Amino acid sequence: MTRTAPAPPFPRTPAQADAIRVAVSTVIFTLRRVPDSEAVHVVLPLVRRTRDPHEGLWALPGGWLDEVESLDAAASRTLAETTGLSPSYLEQLYAFGAVDRSPTRVVSIVYWALLRADEIADGSVENVEWFDATRLPQLAFDHNDIVEYALWRLRNKVGYSRIAHGLLADEFTLAELREVYEVILGRRLDPANFRRQVEHSGTLIPTDRFRTGSHRPARLYRYNQDVELADRGPLGSRD
Amino acid sequence: MTRTAPAPPFPRTPAQADAIRVAVSTVIFTLRRVPDSEAVHVVLPLVRRTRDPHEGLWALPGGWLDEVESLDAAASRTLAETTGLSPSYLEQLYAFGAVDRSPTRVVSIVYWALLRADEIADGSVENVEWFDATRLPQLAFDHNDIVEYALWRLRNKVGYSRIAHGLLADEFTLAELREVYEVILGRRLDPANFRRQVEHSGTLIPTDRFRTGSHRPARLYRYNQDVELADRGPLGSRD
Repeated sequence: MTRTAPAPPFPRTPAQADAIRVAVSTVIFTLRRVPDSEAVHVVLPLVRRTRDPHEGLWALPGGWLDEVESLDAAASRTLAETTGLSPSYLEQLYAFGAVDRSPTRVVSIVYWALLRADEIADGSVENVEWFDATRLPQLAFDHNDIVEYALWRLRNKVGYSRIAHGLLADEFTLAELREVYEVILGRRLDPANFRRQVEHSGTLIPTDRFRTGSHRPARLYRYNQDVELADRGPLGSRD
Repeated sequence: MTRTAPAPPFPRTPAQADAIRVAVSTVIFTLRRVPDSEAVHVVLPLVRRTRDPHEGLWALPGGWLDEVESLDAAASRTLAETTGLSPSYLEQLYAFGAVDRSPTRVVSIVYWALLRADEIADGSVENVEWFDATRLPQLAFDHNDIVEYALWRLRNKVGYSRIAHGLLADEFTLAELREVYEVILGRRLDPANFRRQVEHSGTLIPTDRFRTGSHRPARLYRYNQDVELADRGPLGSRD
């Protein structure tokens, strides 16, 4: 690629460069069981804003894109800086660019990831709390809309394999997997139908092991590593 | 939303605002039959660059995001300005932001759309030509990568209904629909399997009309309007 020519790639609007800035934000979903309860919620970390605009409101973890880092790198860096979280994989979700989404003009490239509960280190981080994704307070900027969109994508686009890989331990029963789906979808699923769909999907592999306990033994399954986790196609590691 | 506070939403890196600019580009796919041939190609319009960098190379239609327009609006405007095309619907594809994708730092929000051949006005536009998407020359910037990604998304993510709606006339035979798929996927599909999948998808509605001609009559189908064309979910008309 030519790197010597200083001119911009398109006819330049001189005022534009100074007026539009690029930020990244990240939606991190995980599941959390309510203590002493059967209830499981989809939760995400939010960061309390310590300055205007929207000082005191909760916002998605994020920050400004640096001139010398890729979008992917900026998402990972700002997430780690604000929450201490370092998911192994962040997927780009959508670019939000409405004119009035911030007092100044900001285009936010939003990433998302699923985390297993055991990937979250113990200990609290200053100004960070986890919230039930379906019962959020008023967030800063358009972040309520962004979470709503991320939840919608989670419900619609995520296959069995990715849910299993992203939210469950290495081995799990079909009942555990079904519970994940029920939490995400917000409704009960027929166990027999669910088993049939999963078995036909080719994304799970039955093991020889069983979960034993107070119920009858339940077979453990694992994620099929041959199935691509991230459907980024030819993007590979680029952004 | 608060519109009075002048401060940026995150701690500001002062150098950042001047160094990163936001552009939009659009990939428009349509099908074109090679004259006097059975061959059909996926084609897209490209614009010849008239200035550096990459003067003389072909590039995706696009331009700078204006401070007072949404991402969607910028995609529509720049596409119309460069090619004269005005698709009824553009979908955001991906934000490309590699550090070295342009001599200056540019984050490009890429949109895409499918067009029916009859939606393209006759007459040529200066510096615009249509290219076979699978046999492109070296394009400006990372635009070969972007087209490759868009083709991959077209092959993987687009359901029967959207293909039908985006590329075919209002009524079409299953053979015509299958041909569209064969062109996009680059391989033959088994007619019986294809028919079964389409009939089970619920996205097409059989009509009482038939295509007659030299072959035996073939039933015409239409797109099921009850099925959501664009799976943007809660985004609605926002961007």
